[in-house]
Amino acid sequence: MSLGPGDPRLMTPQCLQAIQSCRAVAGYTGYIDMVPQELLAGKQVVATGMRGEVQRCEQAVELAASGVDTAVVCSGDAGVYAMAGLLLELLDARRMDDAVDFEVLPGIPAVCAAAALLGAPLTHDFACVSLSDLLTPWEVIERRLRLALQADFVLALYNPRSKRRTTQLEQTLAMAREHRPPDTPAGFVRNAFRPGQHVRLERLEDARADMADMLSIVVVGASSSRIAAGRMLTPRGYAGKYSLVLSTKDTPEKEK
Amino acid sequence: MSLGPGDPRLMTPQCLQAIQSCRAVAGYTGYIDMVPQELLAGKQVVATGMRGEVQRCEQAVELAASGVDTAVVCSGDAGVYAMAGLLLELLDARRMDDAVDFEVLPGIPAVCAAAALLGAPLTHDFACVSLSDLLTPWEVIERRLRLALQADFVLALYNPRSKRRTTQLEQTLAMAREHRPPDTPAGFVRNAFRPGQHVRLERLEDARADMADMLSIVVVGASSSRIAAGRMLTPRGYAGKYSLVLSTKDTPEKEK
Repeated sequence: MSLGPGDPRLMTPQCLQAIQSCRAVAGYTGYIDMVPQELLAGKQVVATGMRGEVQRCEQAVELAASGVDTAVVCSGDAGVYAMAGLLLELLDARRMDDAVDFEVLPGIPAVCAAAALLGAPLTHDFACVSLSDLLTPWEVIERRLRLALQADFVLALYNPRSKRRTTQLEQTLAMAREHRPPDTPAGFVRNAFRPGQHVRLERLEDARADMADMLSIVVVGASSSRIAAGRMLTPRGYAGKYSLVLSTKDTPEKEK
Repeated sequence: MSLGPGDPRLMTPQCLQAIQSCRAVAGYTGYIDMVPQELLAGKQVVATGMRGEVQRCEQAVELAASGVDTAVVCSGDAGVYAMAGLLLELLDARRMDDAVDFEVLPGIPAVCAAAALLGAPLTHDFACVSLSDLLTPWEVIERRLRLALQADFVLALYNPRSKRRTTQLEQTLAMAREHRPPDTPAGFVRNAFRPGQHVRLERLEDARADMADMLSIVVVGASSSRIAAGRMLTPRGYAGKYSLVLSTKDTPEKEK
């Protein structure tokens, strides 16, 4: 299930109610901390650190199969680079799909949280790419990025950088500069809707890899993306179709 | 602001509170109907039909500039193919960004709602493409689809079909068959988390354009996507890294 970005005001009643009605809750310790703590009272909590995801999902599946209703909590959306997939893999590998009633509860993914803070970068076609080469070879990621740039997608980058991985985002920004004008907007959002939230909007030519870390989402514009009203915008195309720019009869209002 | 798929259990407290505190609410009539009606009492409502989006956003911007706090409601996420972009275009074209305090409140996008119902198709890199050629020439969309298929993205198709547009999805599925094995899963989700919800999972070779309509999201798998435990799964890669399939010591449990 999905906690969204972390702010309780962005959690859905559906997820809160599911946690409430479960007898066990499993998740990365940082995500367990996001759950309103009063909902955890009296429940079995399976919290493991980073890279403990296989272990805690195995425990969750075992709990569920033993008849204990179990919620696996993820930040963002449970289906976007998150545990819904691993749980399904486990249920499938162990042929437990008849024994466990599996349901994915959606939430606000990190990419939408970041986009909202940047403006409206995703109002046209976009692609999400994780730069983590922990489970995918970098050559595969690099080829995908290059084709996505050729396809003129807005690029939303997950896991752009970690302490160990510092070159991938640099290489991605360098590739983007080959395919996009220098003034294409690039947005860096750290800790969206969480304490320490930081939003930074740059021109692609000024964007640097050290503007992101492992808690960031980076959004690189398509060729049509631009800065509008101080925000990042990828126009849907209304201006061309409906002559928006001509309908400015009220503009002088502001000048009075 | 974003209402999510439509089910009130998937609306965020942040959005409901913003509607509550506004003096005017603007939106497509179908989305206004999704708002818990008690929140609309005593408010000015600007509801227009389909293709009335420029008009209602202009009215919303005028209201806001005149000092009336105004919420523009969208289904899904306001930033994904929705009104956040058009509003920003209008504020920019009319140079009203100093006069209007513009904020985007995120929500659960249709693609995540559909994915949750299908299983876990988006746990690896994915691309969202709208098949509507109302504001984008089909040649541009077609080229983007082909490159996205070459890049081995999971493809999430918005606006796959309408009464007027029947060939685009057919052509897209035909292209997908050129780049993906015949047993690649293709998911069709209509009215996710709304009355009339319908979920259909097919092999790509059996997928037909008439399985979708304008209220559907279609998800075509990547080369690694498969059916697992009766759902659509795009594995993140744990199985290769951690030998998930070998950790099946508990499997016989089910057979007892």
